[in-house]
Amino acid sequence: MTDNSNISKKKQKEEKIEKEKELGITVKKSDDFSEWYQQAMLKSEVADYSAVSGCIVYRPGSYAIWEKIVSTCDSKLKKLGVKNSYFPLLIPEKLLMKESTHLEGFSPEVAWVTHAGDTKLDEKLAVRPTSETIMYDSYSKWIRSHRDLPLKLAQWNNVVRWEFKHPVPFLRGREFLWVEGHTVFATKQEAENEGTDIVNIWEDVLKNYLAVAFVTGKKSKKETFAGAEYTISLESAFPNGRAIQGPDFHHDGQIFAKAYDIKFLNKDGEIEYAYQNTWAITTRMIGVMLGIHGDDKGLVIPPRVAPTHIVIVPILFDDSMESVLKKCRELKEELSKEKYHEFNMEVIIDERNYKPGWKFNEWELKGVPLRIELGPRDLEKGQVIIARRDNGVKEQIKFEHVSSTVKKLLDDIQLQLYEKSKRLMESTITKTDSLDDLKRLIDEKKIILAPYCDCGECEENIKEQTGAKTLNSPLNQDSVMTENLKCVRCGKPARLFYFGKSY
Amino acid sequence: MTDNSNISKKKQKEEKIEKEKELGITVKKSDDFSEWYQQAMLKSEVADYSAVSGCIVYRPGSYAIWEKIVSTCDSKLKKLGVKNSYFPLLIPEKLLMKESTHLEGFSPEVAWVTHAGDTKLDEKLAVRPTSETIMYDSYSKWIRSHRDLPLKLAQWNNVVRWEFKHPVPFLRGREFLWVEGHTVFATKQEAENEGTDIVNIWEDVLKNYLAVAFVTGKKSKKETFAGAEYTISLESAFPNGRAIQGPDFHHDGQIFAKAYDIKFLNKDGEIEYAYQNTWAITTRMIGVMLGIHGDDKGLVIPPRVAPTHIVIVPILFDDSMESVLKKCRELKEELSKEKYHEFNMEVIIDERNYKPGWKFNEWELKGVPLRIELGPRDLEKGQVIIARRDNGVKEQIKFEHVSSTVKKLLDDIQLQLYEKSKRLMESTITKTDSLDDLKRLIDEKKIILAPYCDCGECEENIKEQTGAKTLNSPLNQDSVMTENLKCVRCGKPARLFYFGKSY
Repeated sequence: MTDNSNISKKKQKEEKIEKEKELGITVKKSDDFSEWYQQAMLKSEVADYSAVSGCIVYRPGSYAIWEKIVSTCDSKLKKLGVKNSYFPLLIPEKLLMKESTHLEGFSPEVAWVTHAGDTKLDEKLAVRPTSETIMYDSYSKWIRSHRDLPLKLAQWNNVVRWEFKHPVPFLRGREFLWVEGHTVFATKQEAENEGTDIVNIWEDVLKNYLAVAFVTGKKSKKETFAGAEYTISLESAFPNGRAIQGPDFHHDGQIFAKAYDIKFLNKDGEIEYAYQNTWAITTRMIGVMLGIHGDDKGLVIPPRVAPTHIVIVPILFDDSMESVLKKCRELKEELSKEKYHEFNMEVIIDERNYKPGWKFNEWELKGVPLRIELGPRDLEKGQVIIARRDNGVKEQIKFEHVSSTVKKLLDDIQLQLYEKSKRLMESTITKTDSLDDLKRLIDEKKIILAPYCDCGECEENIKEQTGAKTLNSPLNQDSVMTENLKCVRCGKPARLFYFGKSY
Repeated sequence: MTDNSNISKKKQKEEKIEKEKELGITVKKSDDFSEWYQQAMLKSEVADYSAVSGCIVYRPGSYAIWEKIVSTCDSKLKKLGVKNSYFPLLIPEKLLMKESTHLEGFSPEVAWVTHAGDTKLDEKLAVRPTSETIMYDSYSKWIRSHRDLPLKLAQWNNVVRWEFKHPVPFLRGREFLWVEGHTVFATKQEAENEGTDIVNIWEDVLKNYLAVAFVTGKKSKKETFAGAEYTISLESAFPNGRAIQGPDFHHDGQIFAKAYDIKFLNKDGEIEYAYQNTWAITTRMIGVMLGIHGDDKGLVIPPRVAPTHIVIVPILFDDSMESVLKKCRELKEELSKEKYHEFNMEVIIDERNYKPGWKFNEWELKGVPLRIELGPRDLEKGQVIIARRDNGVKEQIKFEHVSSTVKKLLDDIQLQLYEKSKRLMESTITKTDSLDDLKRLIDEKKIILAPYCDCGECEENIKEQTGAKTLNSPLNQDSVMTENLKCVRCGKPARLFYFGKSY
């Protein structure tokens, strides 16, 4: 295998393989968002399609983001006294059927296990679409007295919902990962207070970690979670003019407690049904975040959840290779000892035998927030070049200031990404009290703030006419319908709701 | 609700509820291990049975142990360059069928999804019993060149194996949690080298975290993982005379690569099949650890993986309550700032309105390594009493020495638990080269080290006669059969193997 023809054959084969893995997104984000989104997710190698229709592979690039979201939320939730646990994946049909609204909400999407090996099961088992039914069966055994409350359990797990809509990586699929919190309280007040704490955590994580702007509000009756008294959601604006739901909080009152017989002896010696909440954040947020921040070159990952903060690309020439590599490795070692907020600073050197420009493109595609370039000229001058992923700005920085500069730059990238997301959100929200305006604005891909009576029928009608539904209703207004606002459709007393086309 | 009869009714109800939650294990571990084990797992509230036959609830007490095992293994695996990922739960039947030995190994236990909502699926889907088949389908797309190797992915997830044997919490059930590592290399040598690294991690975790003694060795051909060239396992001695398998490592050679078409262009420009490994550690280890260390009072949790290291029990009297509680809270705050090895020191105060003795019993049942008692007399003397869970020894310790003393005590508990487990392991292993001895020793609940020819038939025959199978074969001996050893059954050249009845 050492003669020239073989070497040239080998080279051809290698080139062919490299070509197969063609880098770069071939459409502009603003021209064709959905094609851009798909290419960005696949080519940056954060996701891939799998042999199971509607289910993706969460490749290391996205799973590492999820690990940071998990770690962040988990430590905040634990401070509220939430404990983690794990309940069975498979739920007997009879348990699922106990709360009828809940069952109706989920049963069309349930994946059913009917056989084990060659044996038909006596009772079919649902692959959990959510775990209320199996958890509350245990809760009804465990909770006896007010001393057993509050009970605050969560699980970080996988759920399956067999949607038949067109799948989109992270945003809509048949399996996703999440935390589902299921908490039980002796009083309605305590349960509702938890809502504030949970929503604060979700707001903190979206704003300060994912750099995603949002509006918080209460869902309309029609869009309330199956089995809940009310739902609070965070909704964000997506660059394609759609709205997209983020994490949520459901107050269940005593609805599930009555269906699953969760009652306790209260301090007055009386048996009473308990009050419950449910809340969740899911892997969907990875897609929301990447979809909002990405650009024509690929992903732009906010530093607070980036798996890699900095890539060092040595500019190599034969005569200076050793000294340049040596300095790059020293820099990596120095920076890797640092923390960036609660996580370790993650730094890699790309020493592969490719041209620098090719490497720049690849790491831009993958969304690494900062790139450090160092060549022989820089080495002589005692400096590096630092390039920002978000705006492409390059700076020359002396060796001794690298460590302090990267932290400042990372914080600024984090902030700028949030500000950009906030501008997108603000520029898309438009207020109106006319149905005609609402229809026109929906066509213009706006999110509309308009009065609505929450009767269900008006929302159904607006959806039929426009394809838009309510997102949520801002919390900073009267909790009851007011005569001052008239429903955009029927004119009855109303509250303000956001409307939009939604994923 | 304030008249006397109501107060007395309330009291009766509360007493009735407390009685229902009766504390304490009612059998001795040495008298009836399996009843002891079950009571220990349920009454300490680490596990509970669920509405799904064969599946348990991992309650916070055990899930928090699992979180520490995950965190420990995960950081060690990441240092080897392993990256986490997530592949779909549901695997199409046709993928599962590609490697026939593997399929035969798992198909009797596969839970099959056949319907989604009311719709019958075109192809039935397996709930993953393990993920080789779905992961390798992606690997065959991703791997093209030697530049793509090594590929080292793992997933921390849930798997379902529908066993029909009697379930035992943690040890045998239809769903468990684990990490499954699936790595790909360009050469057999690199793949086998990883085996040493992985086995080193498993040995470190068992010895230094779970305080569980083990023997490491290669499985017999008959007991090798379905689809692997060979399997290395860690096996431990359980107090009931059975052996129990711990984490493992499988070298798959090119077997799966050929079945799933995982090939690459090597450095010589030739297309070659890749070499693969698979390895895992599971939630079973929670049960192994708790079963080995527990005693007649309940669980004894090794400090390195204990969710709570210290419980402070104030001894309260009306006239000194405030000052005692104040000091206890100060102590908690002081100790909670400390680290115990890589984790935070976890300290709780039990301020509930129960008698101290009742609290002592409860925390002993739950296995918290250290208890600090502090009453008015201690407060006067400027000291606390520290009681060890493992041996019950109590010491009086001055306030200023509490922090340094607890760390020393925790380390000593950790060490003593491992030493005890090692003594159990060593006392149960007995060497023989006679079949009659082997049969007798199996009846005496020993683990036997005996020569065996690895033909499969002899092992089958020994299992029929005794109920015992091979566990593994020590690594520190010739890798081939030697004339110096004669198989305990057929007299042919052999190697030494451990035999025992196994979970």
